[in-house]
Amino acid sequence: MAVDREKALEMHRKAKGKICIYPTMNIRREEDISMAYVPGAVYPAQEILRDKSAVYDYTGKRNRLAVITDGSATLGLGNIGPEASLPVVEGKCLLFKQFGDVNAFPLCLASQNAEDIIHTALLIAPTVGAINIEDIASPNTFTVVRKLQKTLEIPVMCNDQHSSAVVVFAALSNSLKILGKKIEDLKIVVLGSGAAGIATTELLLYAGARDIVALNSSGILGPDNHKMNHIQQELSTRINKEGIKGGLEEAAKGADVIVGLSSSGKISPEIIKSMGKDPVIFALSRPNPEITPEEALKAGARIAASSLHDSINPLPNLHAYPGICRGLLDVRATGLNNNILIAAARAICSVVDRLRLSEDHIMPDLFSDEVTPRVAETVAQAAIAEGMATINVPKGRIYDKTWQRLFGGARARL
Amino acid sequence: MAVDREKALEMHRKAKGKICIYPTMNIRREEDISMAYVPGAVYPAQEILRDKSAVYDYTGKRNRLAVITDGSATLGLGNIGPEASLPVVEGKCLLFKQFGDVNAFPLCLASQNAEDIIHTALLIAPTVGAINIEDIASPNTFTVVRKLQKTLEIPVMCNDQHSSAVVVFAALSNSLKILGKKIEDLKIVVLGSGAAGIATTELLLYAGARDIVALNSSGILGPDNHKMNHIQQELSTRINKEGIKGGLEEAAKGADVIVGLSSSGKISPEIIKSMGKDPVIFALSRPNPEITPEEALKAGARIAASSLHDSINPLPNLHAYPGICRGLLDVRATGLNNNILIAAARAICSVVDRLRLSEDHIMPDLFSDEVTPRVAETVAQAAIAEGMATINVPKGRIYDKTWQRLFGGARARL
Repeated sequence: MAVDREKALEMHRKAKGKICIYPTMNIRREEDISMAYVPGAVYPAQEILRDKSAVYDYTGKRNRLAVITDGSATLGLGNIGPEASLPVVEGKCLLFKQFGDVNAFPLCLASQNAEDIIHTALLIAPTVGAINIEDIASPNTFTVVRKLQKTLEIPVMCNDQHSSAVVVFAALSNSLKILGKKIEDLKIVVLGSGAAGIATTELLLYAGARDIVALNSSGILGPDNHKMNHIQQELSTRINKEGIKGGLEEAAKGADVIVGLSSSGKISPEIIKSMGKDPVIFALSRPNPEITPEEALKAGARIAASSLHDSINPLPNLHAYPGICRGLLDVRATGLNNNILIAAARAICSVVDRLRLSEDHIMPDLFSDEVTPRVAETVAQAAIAEGMATINVPKGRIYDKTWQRLFGGARARL
Repeated sequence: MAVDREKALEMHRKAKGKICIYPTMNIRREEDISMAYVPGAVYPAQEILRDKSAVYDYTGKRNRLAVITDGSATLGLGNIGPEASLPVVEGKCLLFKQFGDVNAFPLCLASQNAEDIIHTALLIAPTVGAINIEDIASPNTFTVVRKLQKTLEIPVMCNDQHSSAVVVFAALSNSLKILGKKIEDLKIVVLGSGAAGIATTELLLYAGARDIVALNSSGILGPDNHKMNHIQQELSTRINKEGIKGGLEEAAKGADVIVGLSSSGKISPEIIKSMGKDPVIFALSRPNPEITPEEALKAGARIAASSLHDSINPLPNLHAYPGICRGLLDVRATGLNNNILIAAARAICSVVDRLRLSEDHIMPDLFSDEVTPRVAETVAQAAIAEGMATINVPKGRIYDKTWQRLFGGARARL
């Protein structure tokens, strides 16, 4: 949705930061200081010294998320560095809070070296219940997230990778219900091999897709593409079984689905006309899609979705990350894997009532009260099933608590 | 003040973190997301890209403080590591907010290596307007703070060093008014050469003291003391001009002032009896002082103060750090030096009305509404005078604004 530049600047000037710190208790008397600071805080410190896991009982670690970026791949702006990325990352923290009641704070780092980012994240980890890697360019984003996931005992999410993959898989799953197709039988083209493109391709493969062709800016990933980074190289051996060569034109011929995670205007009507029966087009480049849903439908797409909030079938990442983080934190998850991401996608799908499901309604509404509580509940149960949860929670409990904290008081307090 | 263990644990369990993140705006409609996130946040990002200093206008950097610790010297507990230090550091963040309206968040680090701590602080610096180093053991605390102060263009405070030194100097200045003595003529003993002891000695030297004898656990700092770390070594060449050897007994003979920054029970009545005329005893070891003010007075002290909140003359660090941080942030200071610290101490002194100043009232009340606004104003003006302020602020303005934000609304919102 278009926003007036001057209005946006004025709003930011007035807000002086889109998030702030708030005390959960008041300090009015000397006793309050003694309780909250010294000696009061010494007792929980001793408990934690005895049993490290008590840090979840006595501190805010349980609901605290560090949103870490180096500002190397900021939405629509590219490599802008830590200071300039701060308004965007604060915006993300605000959304984590408002949609997931997660205490997210920004850490915009003065280095774009993967080792530096990893080192910093490892060192600050005791303070937080989870880490979200944000707007770090590929392939560094993969180097960072993989290393952190392997090393840390808290979940490490990456919005660019995981949320994008989850909403694409959710939208595709609901589309397949309409079309009566199976993921195993699809020919899928993933246009764009940055963080979102790679992660989406990997999740679709994990979910059963057999025929995926992925492209970077030099064309189809495969032995003939000489401009691949090591992550693309690695992925190229697991896809494009038919060995198709060339660019989007060659890849799209007869395809069932094109997922656009590249840049504005990259999909022409001719490309869609060359696809198979009932083409599905997800044009997710932001802020402007590869093709608008309207143009895609006109060119013959059966289902079209995009990154545009004010068109049909918006596919907002916002359906994914607040609920995923909420669910992981609520069971004190030690990690995050593909089964949990797939569960999250299925939870998003489930919010769209079978009776309402149609070509122009494949995803829940942006402000649906159901999405985050259902995703949180499903993610929590999936983490328990995967042996990645530290505490067990009865079925339905996370849903109820999430609904309560989002709509039953937390927001009303504002 | 004593606190019931079970009550403190229960309070912490219920609070689930003593601070939380709060949104400064509500997200109710799609337009709100477009305004706060993308594309709305892209405009301030572009402004910051053009001029980095605009990050202070469009984000929360201007009022954000990272409270960084490695948990190596937590009050009354010693080296307890990052997780166990979290309740105490969250308590400190809460006090920064409640007394200074600073958005302080904890970073408890999983390393006690000075280089690691420095590296992390340098990398996260773009996100914050200031850094507070907390509960890091000496000499690492000096290595870290000196390096950061030299490298960063934002102020780096250290509560253990700076706040302790400031309140001691404030209490001493007011005591001297009562006694009619001058700092130049005093024989001062500083008992304890950790972060607070070293920093206090250095500030008193800077303020004009000529005769200081400092001690660590092995005795008087000087050529005969073979158990000094490099910071104590360095300091030892600038003090103890008479070359006194031995321990506290030798140092205290004929002294005017003993500042205790060591540990419980270290000052006996006999020591006080051996001092000069009108002895001044500040027994600041926490949680239990070197001697209680009552015992000190009984042994002949003319003025006695301690770390105890519920005795006469409490000397709370709380008088220093919220106001110092508030003032530095409000003028976007690029650093912090001794002149600013001395100004802060004088502001604290000034709150005690001349007519009320007496042996048992040398410091302002803990909950005085005047302290933080006056300290903030004085620190801001001192930073301007020192050429360390980025923006100029008319006299009285920081006082008014601080008073307003602390007592005229911010607290009322709770």
